[in-house]
Parts: sequence; structure tokens; C-alpha cells
Amino acid sequence: MNIWVVVSFVAGLISVGVAAWYFQWVKKQNAGTERAQRVAKWIKDGAESYLRKLYGALGLLAGILAVIIAIVFSIQQGFGYGLTMAIAFIAGAVCSTIAGYMGMAIAVEANVRSATAANEGLNPAFNVAFKAGSVMGLAMVGLALIGMSLVYLITQNANVVLGFSFGASTLALLAKAGGGIYTKTADIAADLVGKVEVGIPEDDPRNPAVVADNVGDNVGDVAGMGADIFDSYVASSVAAMLLGAALTGLSGDQLVLYTIFPLILCMLGSFASLIGVQFVQVKEGGKPGTSLNNGTIYTCVIFGVMVIAVVLVAGIDLAALWSTLAGLITGVVIGFSSDFFTGDDRPPVVETARVSGSGAAVNIITGFSYGLISIVPSVIGIVIATLVSYYLAEQSSVINGVYGVGISAVGMLAISGMIVSSDAYGPIVDNARGIAEMAGMPEEVIEVADVMDAAGNTAKAITKGFAISAAALTVLALFSAYSSEITLAAQELGKTIDMTMSLSNPMVIAAIFLGACTPPLFSALTMLSVTHNAFDMIEEIRRQFREEPGILAGTVEPDYVTCVSLASQDALKSLVIPAFLAVALPLLVGFIMGPEALGAFLGGSIFTGIIFALLMANAGGLWDNAKKYIESGFFGGKGSDAHKAGVVGDTVGDPFKDTAGPSLNTLITVMSLVSSLFAPIIVAVGGLF
Amino acid sequence: MNIWVVVSFVAGLISVGVAAWYFQWVKKQNAGTERAQRVAKWIKDGAESYLRKLYGALGLLAGILAVIIAIVFSIQQGFGYGLTMAIAFIAGAVCSTIAGYMGMAIAVEANVRSATAANEGLNPAFNVAFKAGSVMGLAMVGLALIGMSLVYLITQNANVVLGFSFGASTLALLAKAGGGIYTKTADIAADLVGKVEVGIPEDDPRNPAVVADNVGDNVGDVAGMGADIFDSYVASSVAAMLLGAALTGLSGDQLVLYTIFPLILCMLGSFASLIGVQFVQVKEGGKPGTSLNNGTIYTCVIFGVMVIAVVLVAGIDLAALWSTLAGLITGVVIGFSSDFFTGDDRPPVVETARVSGSGAAVNIITGFSYGLISIVPSVIGIVIATLVSYYLAEQSSVINGVYGVGISAVGMLAISGMIVSSDAYGPIVDNARGIAEMAGMPEEVIEVADVMDAAGNTAKAITKGFAISAAALTVLALFSAYSSEITLAAQELGKTIDMTMSLSNPMVIAAIFLGACTPPLFSALTMLSVTHNAFDMIEEIRRQFREEPGILAGTVEPDYVTCVSLASQDALKSLVIPAFLAVALPLLVGFIMGPEALGAFLGGSIFTGIIFALLMANAGGLWDNAKKYIESGFFGGKGSDAHKAGVVGDTVGDPFKDTAGPSLNTLITVMSLVSSLFAPIIVAVGGLF
Repeated sequence: MNIWVVVSFVAGLISVGVAAWYFQWVKKQNAGTERAQRVAKWIKDGAESYLRKLYGALGLLAGILAVIIAIVFSIQQGFGYGLTMAIAFIAGAVCSTIAGYMGMAIAVEANVRSATAANEGLNPAFNVAFKAGSVMGLAMVGLALIGMSLVYLITQNANVVLGFSFGASTLALLAKAGGGIYTKTADIAADLVGKVEVGIPEDDPRNPAVVADNVGDNVGDVAGMGADIFDSYVASSVAAMLLGAALTGLSGDQLVLYTIFPLILCMLGSFASLIGVQFVQVKEGGKPGTSLNNGTIYTCVIFGVMVIAVVLVAGIDLAALWSTLAGLITGVVIGFSSDFFTGDDRPPVVETARVSGSGAAVNIITGFSYGLISIVPSVIGIVIATLVSYYLAEQSSVINGVYGVGISAVGMLAISGMIVSSDAYGPIVDNARGIAEMAGMPEEVIEVADVMDAAGNTAKAITKGFAISAAALTVLALFSAYSSEITLAAQELGKTIDMTMSLSNPMVIAAIFLGACTPPLFSALTMLSVTHNAFDMIEEIRRQFREEPGILAGTVEPDYVTCVSLASQDALKSLVIPAFLAVALPLLVGFIMGPEALGAFLGGSIFTGIIFALLMANAGGLWDNAKKYIESGFFGGKGSDAHKAGVVGDTVGDPFKDTAGPSLNTLITVMSLVSSLFAPIIVAVGGLF
Repeated sequence: MNIWVVVSFVAGLISVGVAAWYFQWVKKQNAGTERAQRVAKWIKDGAESYLRKLYGALGLLAGILAVIIAIVFSIQQGFGYGLTMAIAFIAGAVCSTIAGYMGMAIAVEANVRSATAANEGLNPAFNVAFKAGSVMGLAMVGLALIGMSLVYLITQNANVVLGFSFGASTLALLAKAGGGIYTKTADIAADLVGKVEVGIPEDDPRNPAVVADNVGDNVGDVAGMGADIFDSYVASSVAAMLLGAALTGLSGDQLVLYTIFPLILCMLGSFASLIGVQFVQVKEGGKPGTSLNNGTIYTCVIFGVMVIAVVLVAGIDLAALWSTLAGLITGVVIGFSSDFFTGDDRPPVVETARVSGSGAAVNIITGFSYGLISIVPSVIGIVIATLVSYYLAEQSSVINGVYGVGISAVGMLAISGMIVSSDAYGPIVDNARGIAEMAGMPEEVIEVADVMDAAGNTAKAITKGFAISAAALTVLALFSAYSSEITLAAQELGKTIDMTMSLSNPMVIAAIFLGACTPPLFSALTMLSVTHNAFDMIEEIRRQFREEPGILAGTVEPDYVTCVSLASQDALKSLVIPAFLAVALPLLVGFIMGPEALGAFLGGSIFTGIIFALLMANAGGLWDNAKKYIESGFFGGKGSDAHKAGVVGDTVGDPFKDTAGPSLNTLITVMSLVSSLFAPIIVAVGGLF
């Protein structure tokens, strides 16, 4: 059976290899005029300086956590196991870091090259941007496959892969929350002083925060989103592997086959993505959005065919196939349907734009309300995917229902290579537009950049819907994995632990309520960090304008570096409490209230985590596009009252969709992982009640 | 044992009698100048015309539901029972209607008299307003006691009281949602055209929507809030009575004693409130807020002493006493602590006001974030009250844990007479201020009205915290009552129904998720109705200004009536889908997914219902007070950029705190009641899965 794992390892190597090749190809493209290169270098230096600081701080945290893991598991299960677990944890953290870093590294090279290529037309500009996006997508998938396969090949133990996943997710959470705070701090500060106070356009090089703003796009959107999907991708595989290893009635090769089936799916998905990205091309005058969507559809079809073939060849139970396809189809459907609530010319966006003429308050109320409604179809989709995969798998004599749910999450995430490629394209073209503006490129070039940018926004909305749904299925699988870990650990210790988690138990109700408060609290803390940090930066921008009048006159270059490092420091400081909430709070609940209450606590955090993530992502996207719709000339166009209201909505939506919302999936993943990982310890120590 | 019920009935009569006496007293006060009386008459006529339409439509709905109830229960349990149930339902609907109507009737008399009395000073003006508020508080408690005692005396069956409660809650939900939509439609439309477009002050008689705005205060805040607390008050008593009737190991008089103990608590609370309201007096130059709070504290102490005495005399188990006190203390603590997040000079309000200088978006993000944080302490309070009352009661050999939770909800709500009196005072003085302005009273009078108004806002914040916490405990008790109803019904039919509602069952997870989507969806629909209806009214106001220039010149009186009836029609139309969500959706879930899934669905709706209710009530109150804080001269004062941002926040908060938020408690109460009431039918028909 290990041959499959070896193939997965090799698939990972191929994926990373192709990513490296694309990387070189992009770097070889024309980097443009000296002025453009200078602008790009500011962004690159800023992004690297932030990531160095971030990973320095996170490295320290990861080191501390690794030592704790080593000690705890050594006491519990022997020194060898403790050390292995700590190493797996570090490996996960390192892979997650490399995935994020690589995406960022290519993004800061590609933005200027895409902008330069835009001088020659849409086709070459799109090609550079999408190839660069693929570097991120393929590298991420490849690193995950290499890491998971290697850990499993060496240890043959799905529990150790859990340690790998915990390392990946913890880093992803902090990279994402930190990046989200950074990007919106810079964005809001740059806009408030630049556009509102002194009246200079977006991306104007006289604005001292403009580089920090563009750096933010890279560290928040590229590195952050990459780390996020990386973590869901690994976590869903691990959850399914754990549930596979816990299947009863199987033994020997059969048990191993179902344990590694999630890895096989990831491997097939990586090949499908490799092929899918080849189809993404756009002709002059074509629609980049359509090309991206076609790429996704081709990848799904190729993946589906390959899964059917492998299931038949390897003699895997057909129920596993249905679960895979249920997840895949639901992911795509939810992704595209989330486009309804945020799409440019759909009723919610148009209606929000229309009412904006009556002021910012009406824009906010309307957008927020549609955001609330947008929760419903996605949740119904998640519920259907869960029930279908559960009951179909439950019919099987080989696998069980919870394994089916786990597999459906993997089925959804297996094509992440393609999804992330489309998504990473977004911030690259956003940056390309910024560089074109800052470097004073001609109007036609900026128009090409605008066309590419609009497609990026749609891709982003689809990815978010997809990421949240996948995270929902993943955490539901992790939630089952937690229960089965607790039960296993209790058996080994000869304890009887009730994991019914019945709603008629008041302790369960209490724990669900407490868990349900965590995602809103986490969102609030990260959003307050954004406004708080933005104030620091606003002061700095005002100081520069005040002390050096030459900046606004355009004769003196502003001090970009101070703004960049201010944003970095503030973002890092803001991560302390969120990190505590994610890692320490579940353990506290487990040790004080016991394993059953911790399960209920996780359940509560999953319910509101998904709901708030959907609300914030969709409302944010909707406000953004409502503003753009007005800017494209409707309801008064740029400069009208409606536009001013639209800008307020967009600014409110920024931390919703880019800071608080997307961190929530990762938050609930980390909380579930830390609970599963420490399950044996929680069982041994027990609750105080 | 029936003697206690008779005493409760008499207590109800006394309470209504005192209310009627106060009503006459208020009506005898000086109704002021002809101009003031004319303004007051517009408001009175507008409110009566809306309530006539509302109760006409609701009467029809109640009639249809009564027929359905009669038919369904006749088939199930015989014609006599079906008829009794339908009559109880109608009685609940009628009592709820009278309570709301009476509050509204006194409010529209008291506003002008309080404004007139303000010419003589704070003491007489406050006295008129608070006496009028007491009419609402005492009438509501009295009607509830009369209704519940009578139904129980006649039928000796707690299940029939459930029918009474369902009638009260259904009417309350629609009265409240309708009133909430009405009041904010008028408020937003009046502000957007009046203040923003043509630049006339608030409450200016030239604004055609000004009467509708003042009518809204009465039908939304007085009638709506009265109906809301009425419904929680009845529902908590019924839930506890059902749980008392289901106590095992008791029989005969003892069983009856514990079944009617909730009625006894309500009776004691009504006496305590009667005494408490006598203490509420304010001297010239005194603080109305302090007087209101002192009244609440005296009432609590008197109630506590009476409960201790009765428990000892009647030989009731001490655990019931502890549960009562746990609820009472928690309610007061949560009420006062919700003041932290919305209080004038507390950090959240001051911080939100401070950042407003940087624009509306930052104001919204900050206020929303504090709203999210405000969820946490209240939920912790609810959780502690639940666990304490559950485990103390579980220790007893006589009662059980869920009965303890039910009793704690009753303990919290028993002093509603006093709470509602303070709360109803708020919109009365708000209206008094409006009339003083519209009738051109001198500046000193308006200042007195302002002092009274500020205290009203604090009382309102405390009541909302109290109402939401009480609703949380009530629905948790109803949730247990639902389970016990299902189990009883299954026993009678010889069916076995699993009501474990375990989180490891995917159908339970799916149902919780679906239930959790309902409160956000309900909020979104009511808020979208507000903006949609406000647009209709804005068009009407603009039309009047356009077609009759004399209105703005102040020479022609605007057509107030058209605005009033437009708001009425639109509000009623907007109730169709929310009514469906509340009543029909739970039944659909029950019939399709089965009784266990319906329980989980209710659980999900309770979790997010409480969380969104707290978020919306507190964020809304915070934005309102942040605006007022700026208006009082901080951070630039009136007319500054900070003030403009504060106005946007306040307008966003309006439908949060007055439309969507407060309806959520009632929504989850109605959903729980309809499920419990139809439990026997759901068990008989079963789920499709």
C-alpha cells in the first residue's frame, strides 16, 4: 500500500518542480522601466521585511509550542513519540511558511512584469499574472503532499500527521490574521489621509503609506490566503486519515488503503490541477474571468475521471467515490453561487449601489442584510454535502458515515492547486494596477490592468465561498476525529468517557454557548486592531506631510519604510490575544470542563465560525463591488453622493472580508486540531466538574 | 392548592385596577395649550389608526391559527380539548393585544401632559411620565396573571396554558416586528429628507413624516416592548409549569404546588412591583436615572424577602428558592452590566465617538466590534445562571435540574412590572420632548425634557439586557419543555423516540446549522423591509415638498396622514415572510426531519438568536450614545465631521436595536412554543427520514 504514498510524494515533487520552473519563467520576463522596477522594489523590500519579522516571531512561538508538545507527549507516551510529534509539528510549520513565502516571493516579482507586459496587451499580461498565481497554487499543493507523505511513510501513524497539520494551521492562522490586520491597517490609513484628507488619488506615490498598502496586498492576500488553503488542505486530509485509521472491521492492507485514500485524492487533485492550469489562456479582448472559471471546471472534470478510474482499479468501496464527488460538486456549486451575492451585476450588489444615494447608513444596512441572507444557501449546501456523504457512506459495509464526511471535505479541497492559482492571480493583478499607476504608465495599460483586476475580484469571491465551505466540512470531520480520539484515549486508560454531547445536558448547552462566542470575539479583536493600528499610521502619514511639504508637492520622496515597519510591528503585537484564544482557550475548556464539554465548545465555535465567516466574506465583497458598480457610472458615478456612501461601505467591508472573516475558518480549524492533538492528555487529566 | 391560583388571579385584578386608576390620574392632568394638544392628537390618531390596521390583520391571522389548532387538536385528542386549546390561544392573543394597546393608549395621553408639566419643573413632569409608564407595567403583569390563572383554574392543565402562551407570543412577535419596522421606516425617512436633504431640525412640524416618526415611538417602543415582555413573562411561567407538571416522584397536592409555583412567583413579583413603583420619585435637580434604578433595586429586595417567606411557609423545597434568586440576581447584574457597553461615559462609547473624526466607516467598524465583544459577558452570565440553577435543583430530592432552570427564568421575569414601568417611561419622555419642540415650548422646558430623555435611554439599555437574558433562560426552559412534551407524547402513542440530540449525529448537526441560520435571516428580512419602506416614504415626503412649497415655508400644514398610513401598510406587508419563518418553518422541520431534528433546530436558533440579539441591541445602543456624546460637545461637537460619522452609526444602529435585535427573543420563543404545542402531532406524524 505504501506505493500510493510514494506516488503521492513524487506527485508533490513534480508539483513543486513545475512551480519552480514557472517561477524562473516569470522572473525571466521583462521587468520594465527603471521607475517601475524601483516601485516594485519598494513593495518587495517591504513585504520581505514584514515576513522576516513575522516568521521570526512565529518561529519563536512554534519553538515554544514544539517544546511543550515534546514534553507533554514524552510524559504521556515516551520520549521517542514526543520527539517525533514535535518534529512533525515543526515540519508542518516550516512547510506552511515556505508555501506562504514562495507565493509572496513570486507575487512581488510578477506584479511589475505583468504591468510591463500589459503594454503589449491583455494576453501576455494575463499570462504572466496567472503563471505566477500557479506558482503559489502548485507549490502549496506540492509542499503539502511532500510533507504529509513523508511523515506518514516514516511513522506509518496518522496521529503524527495530526501534529504536522497542527503546525501548519497554527502558523497559517497567525500569518493570515497578521497579514489581514497589516493589509487593512495600511489600506484604511492610506485612504483616509490620502483620498479623504489631502485629496490625492489611490496608489499615488506621494502617499507615504502607498507602499505599505501594496505590501499589504501581498502579505495579506497572497501569503495569507495561501497559508489558509494550505492549512484546510492538510487538515481535511488528516481528519479523513484519522477517521480512516479508526474504521472498524478492517485490517492490514485494507485498513491502510482507506487511511491513505485521502492522500491518494490529494495526489490525483494535484495532477488534475497541473493539467487544468494549462487551459487557462485569454485572447486579446477575451474575458479573463471566463478563462479562470473554465480552468476550474476542466480541473474538476479531469479530477472526477481520475478518481473514478483509481477507485475502480484499486477496488475501493464505491461509497467513498460518492462522498468524494458530493464534496467536489458542492464546493464548486457553493463557490459559484457565492458569486450571486457579490457579483457585479447581480441584484444584491445593484440594489446596495442603488440605495447608496440616500447615504452611507442605508448602504451599510442593505449590504449587511444581504450578507446575512447569503449565509443561508451556503449553509444549506454544507448541510446537504454532509448528509449525503454521511448517509451514502453509512450504507456501505466497509466505511462509515463520518469517514464519508471527511472524504467529502478532501474531495472538495483536492483541486486546491487550481483554486489557489486563480485566487493568487487576484492580488498580483491588483498590485500590477498599482504599479502601473505609480510608475505613470499610459492610460491603455491601466485599462488592461483594470480588466484583469475585475476578474480577480470574482475569482476571489469564488475562492472564499469555496474555502469556507471546505473548512466547514473539514472541521466537521475534525470534530468527529476529536470524538474518536477521546474515545480511543479513554479506552487505553481504561476510563469511561461519555461523548454523547446531548443537547439535553446543560453543561453541553453551556459549552456550546461559550464556543459560539469565540468567533465573534476573535473577529472583534482583529477588527479593533485594524482601526487602532490605522490610527498610528494616520498620525505618521500626517507627520510626514506636515514636516516635509515637499512630499505633497511631489518634489520629495516620502519615507515609505517607516510606514511599512509601523504596520509590521503593530500587526505582530495584535496577534497575542488571538493566538491565545485559538490555542489556549480550548485546552482551558478541556481541562476545566472536561472532554465532553470541550467537544460541545468546538461545536459551538464551528456553528458561529462558519456563519460569521460567510457573513463577513460576502458582505465585504458585496460592498466592494457595489462601490465599483457606482464607479463604473451608475447612480451618479464617481464623486456622487452615492459614491461617497459606497466608499464608506467598502471601507467597512475591508476588515470584514480581508481581516476578520477569512481568519475564522483557520481559527476553528486550529481549535479543533489542538483539541484532537491533546485529546490523550485531556482524557488523562479530566475535567474539574 | 387552588387557593394560590385564586390569589394570583386576585393579584392580577389588583394590578390592573391600580393601572386603571393611574390611567385616570394621568388623563386628569393638564393637557396643555391648544397647539400642544393638536400635535398630540395627530400622534394619537396616527397610532390608533396603525394599531387598528395591525390588530385587524393579526386578528384574521389569529382566527386562522385558532381554527387550525381547533381542528388539529380535535382530531388528535377530541373536540372538547381542541376547542379549549383554540379558546386559550385566542385568550392569549387578546390579552397580549390589550396589554400593548393599553400601553399605547396611555403613552399618547401622557406625552403631552408630561411636556406640559415640564413647564412647572422636573418633579411633576417625571411623575406624569413614570405613572404613565407604570400603567403599562402593571397592566401587562395583571393581564398575564389574570389570563394564566383563569386558564389554569378552569382546565387544571398546564398544556392548555401553553396554548394561551402561544397566542400571546405570536401576537407579540408580529406586533413587535411590525412596530419595529414602522418606527424605523418613519425615523430614517424623516431624518434623511428632513435633516439631510432640506436641513430642518429633528421633530420640525414642517416635515410630513414627523407625526409618523412620533407614532413609531409609540407603536414600536411602547406597544412593541410591552408585548415582548408580556410574551417572555407568560412563556417563562408556562415552561416552568410544564416542567413542574412533568416532575416525577410527586403526586397530588405536591405536584400541583410545584406546577403552580411559577404563578406564585409572578403573583409575588406583581405585589413587589406595585410597592416598588411607589418609591420612584425625583426631586427638582435630581437624577431621574438614579430614581429608576433605585425603584428596580427596592423591587428586587421586596420580592426576594416575599419569596423567602412564602417558600418557608408553604414548605417548598429550598432548591426552588436558590433557583429563583439565581435568576433574579443574574437578570439584574446582566441588565446593569449591559450598561457598560452602551453607557454614555464608558470606554466603548467614548472610543467609538473618538474615532468618528476619521469617518463613518471607522465608527461603524469600532461600534460593531464592541457589539461583538458585548456578547461575551452576557452569555457568561446566562451560562452561570443556567448551570447554577440546574445543579442546585439537581441536588434536591424533590425537583430536578431543568425545573430549576425554568424557575430561574421566572425569578428573573417576576419583577417585570417594575422593569416595564421604567422602560415605557422612555418613549413617553422621548415623545414629550418631540411635542415640546413641535409645539414651540420654551427652551427651559425642552431642557427638562432632555434630562428625562437621557435617563430613558439608560433604562432602555438595561431593559434590553434584562429582556434578552430572560428570554435566553426562558427558551432554554422551553427547549427542555419541548423534549419532555415529545417524550410524553411518544409514550402515549407507544412510540420510542430518541431525544438525545447528540452532536455526534450528523442529522442533529445539520438541524442545528439550519436553525442557526434562521435568526440572521429573520433580522435581514426585517431590516431590508425598513430600508425598502423608508424609500417609499422618502418619495412621499419629497412629493409633498415639491408639490406644495408652502410646507417648507411653514405656511401650509403638511399631509401627515398619508405618511402615517403609508408606514402602516408597508409594515404590515413586511410581516408575511417573518410570520411564516416563525410559525411554519419549525413545523416543516418537524414534519420533514422528525422530532429530534426539530429539537436540534430549536437549539441552533437559540444559540444564534441570543448572540445576534445581544450584538444588535448593544451595538445599536452604543452608536446612539456615541452620537449623543459627540453632540454634547466632545470631539468637535454638533456639525463636526465626527458628528456626521456619528449620525451614520446611529442610523445603522436604529434598525439593529429597534427592529431586528429585539424581535429575535420573541422569534425564538414563538418557534419553541409552536414546537411544544404541536409536539403530539409531530410525534404522531413523524419525520420523513
